[in-house]
Amino acid sequence: MEVAQVLRMNGGAGKTSYANNSFVQQKAITLSKPIREEAITSLYSSTLPRSLAIADLGCSSGPNTLFVVSEVIKTVEQLCRKLNHKSPEYRVFLNDLPGNDFNSIFVSLESFKEKLQTEVEGGIGPCYFTGVPGSFYGRVFPYQSLHFVHSSYSLQWMSKVPEGIDNNRGNIYIGTTSPSNVARAYYHQFQRDFSSFLKCRAEELVEEGRMVLTILGRKNEAEDPASSEGGYLIWELMAMALSDMCVQGIIKEEELDSFNIPQYTPSPSEVKLEVLKEGSFVINRVEMAQVNWNPLEDWNGVEFESERCESVSDSGYNLAQCMRSVAEPMLVSHFGGHIIEEVFSRFQKILADRMSKEKTEFSNITILMTRKA
Amino acid sequence: MEVAQVLRMNGGAGKTSYANNSFVQQKAITLSKPIREEAITSLYSSTLPRSLAIADLGCSSGPNTLFVVSEVIKTVEQLCRKLNHKSPEYRVFLNDLPGNDFNSIFVSLESFKEKLQTEVEGGIGPCYFTGVPGSFYGRVFPYQSLHFVHSSYSLQWMSKVPEGIDNNRGNIYIGTTSPSNVARAYYHQFQRDFSSFLKCRAEELVEEGRMVLTILGRKNEAEDPASSEGGYLIWELMAMALSDMCVQGIIKEEELDSFNIPQYTPSPSEVKLEVLKEGSFVINRVEMAQVNWNPLEDWNGVEFESERCESVSDSGYNLAQCMRSVAEPMLVSHFGGHIIEEVFSRFQKILADRMSKEKTEFSNITILMTRKA
Repeated sequence: MEVAQVLRMNGGAGKTSYANNSFVQQKAITLSKPIREEAITSLYSSTLPRSLAIADLGCSSGPNTLFVVSEVIKTVEQLCRKLNHKSPEYRVFLNDLPGNDFNSIFVSLESFKEKLQTEVEGGIGPCYFTGVPGSFYGRVFPYQSLHFVHSSYSLQWMSKVPEGIDNNRGNIYIGTTSPSNVARAYYHQFQRDFSSFLKCRAEELVEEGRMVLTILGRKNEAEDPASSEGGYLIWELMAMALSDMCVQGIIKEEELDSFNIPQYTPSPSEVKLEVLKEGSFVINRVEMAQVNWNPLEDWNGVEFESERCESVSDSGYNLAQCMRSVAEPMLVSHFGGHIIEEVFSRFQKILADRMSKEKTEFSNITILMTRKA
Repeated sequence: MEVAQVLRMNGGAGKTSYANNSFVQQKAITLSKPIREEAITSLYSSTLPRSLAIADLGCSSGPNTLFVVSEVIKTVEQLCRKLNHKSPEYRVFLNDLPGNDFNSIFVSLESFKEKLQTEVEGGIGPCYFTGVPGSFYGRVFPYQSLHFVHSSYSLQWMSKVPEGIDNNRGNIYIGTTSPSNVARAYYHQFQRDFSSFLKCRAEELVEEGRMVLTILGRKNEAEDPASSEGGYLIWELMAMALSDMCVQGIIKEEELDSFNIPQYTPSPSEVKLEVLKEGSFVINRVEMAQVNWNPLEDWNGVEFESERCESVSDSGYNLAQCMRSVAEPMLVSHFGGHIIEEVFSRFQKILADRMSKEKTEFSNITILMTRKA
């Protein structure tokens, strides 16, 4: 599986689109707002840029794509008012893999900019938006061209499925029945990928540039494949749905055995270790946050557009739709499109059952760092 | 009609796509190669940039999109070899209206870069590609951020249909039966748009930056609505097809009367006049070139991919397909999708008839200018 070619969120704005099923990701972004404010405030105060270059890596498409950009610009404008400065020029770079639905983003930009102009009293500085296709595990931006890098819910996706895990039968990730080499192989792939990411960003950020990364991770430090944490468990439950279909002959055993998700949910220590090893960044802050599998359940103070909220009460459905909008292109590429409805119908039931019995949460790690001078 | 929302080339790579029906535009690009070489050579020699920012405005999608970028990079690499310089870093900005099919461009970039690396002995400098959605009649790039601006077959498209031409009945452009105010209104809209374009680019280009523009234009200087030149005639013939359908009741008269093409094909003097009036650029060169309506007829030395060449011999079909790939979204927006097959089937016959009787050509104006210091 060529991850860069098959990993993408469902495009468009339909029922199964990422745009309409990304509440978990939106909640994660909301929770990390104070850290971004800290980052932007210290960045602005220390560098006072006349032209501020912001990159969102793994921007996807939908309401979440421009949420952070909007927030960052508002924070800067507030600082400008407070300090009696003229607004800077904003250069916004939206990056994702080439298969991302950039067309959908682009047609929404005009109204986004108009709305932003009206929301900020006195208006905002000129904004220049660009789409930047390419894997963030390689260089995507010119040398020292960025002031602020942001990425949320993208860095758990690896550049490829780890090698040497042919024996991971019946699982699609690190599962309770996975042999011990599987978790090790996943971790090593994460290390390679994350260190490449850091090296590239170190070249692209200006000195004193800030980076805020939110990664779907795990709380416990042990490499515990039996962990019932969100990041592990969710794929274990999807594997259940696929296994059932395998037993019933809908999916071939070898098809299931050869399918593994190119994702790793690191612990905070694992994240920090790579940053320290790479050496170009000072770590300013690391925080953990929990997001309920049904983020609407304990959501306070955030309004949703009505069409995104049809089935607030049906947690199993919501999460299955969310996972579908994330995993469908990958599953279709491996198994074919014919299994999709069936997989997600079964997955929905399994999820609903589990969520009714225990509190299920995703763990997010957010790290703020500064490019050393 | 909101031009920025309905003007786009047909996306994708299907039978009616712009990607597969843009020979005329390709021929135009081929003919202007010497001027671009002159521009790049003088630009490189005078500024010796370590990071070269190139923008293609109205890039569309398909084989033509990256043709000029590839050529420019090759020219720079040759200069570097000759002068024993290290290759610069390339920042490539592909601009078009937000409805352009950027997704198609983005998925082709990896293989494009790989091919380019192998085609140039010793390889090329690092390339960073970005998509930049927005109308070039406003600012699309940060202040003094570009070294070279290119645009081919885009600037004849105006930001809107001129006002005050409600009396242009039975025509869809400046036609032989158009009242005299119509040509004047079109010209004034062109003046407003082209001067806005120049003003914006003057802000975006660095001092000594170069700009090469190829515009579908006309040879004769007089505002002659009866001109039989390519740019006028082609819409007159499309109006014929639409009028026939109007007579037969397929299209309503008021629908036809209220449809006008947002295009103006200027003369070389009209182009030069606006550049001189704006004042930020030195004109280095202005050239005219003719492209046969069937560009394959007198094409020498250029190889076509076989799937683009199925109907080389059927001139009427080729040009009708070309015009369809350019005008379909606009026609659909005004008349609805149901008329399309019929319009282009009729148009094809009218074109074939005309092309069999006389030599029909488009006139292109290419202008090279330098941003004053």
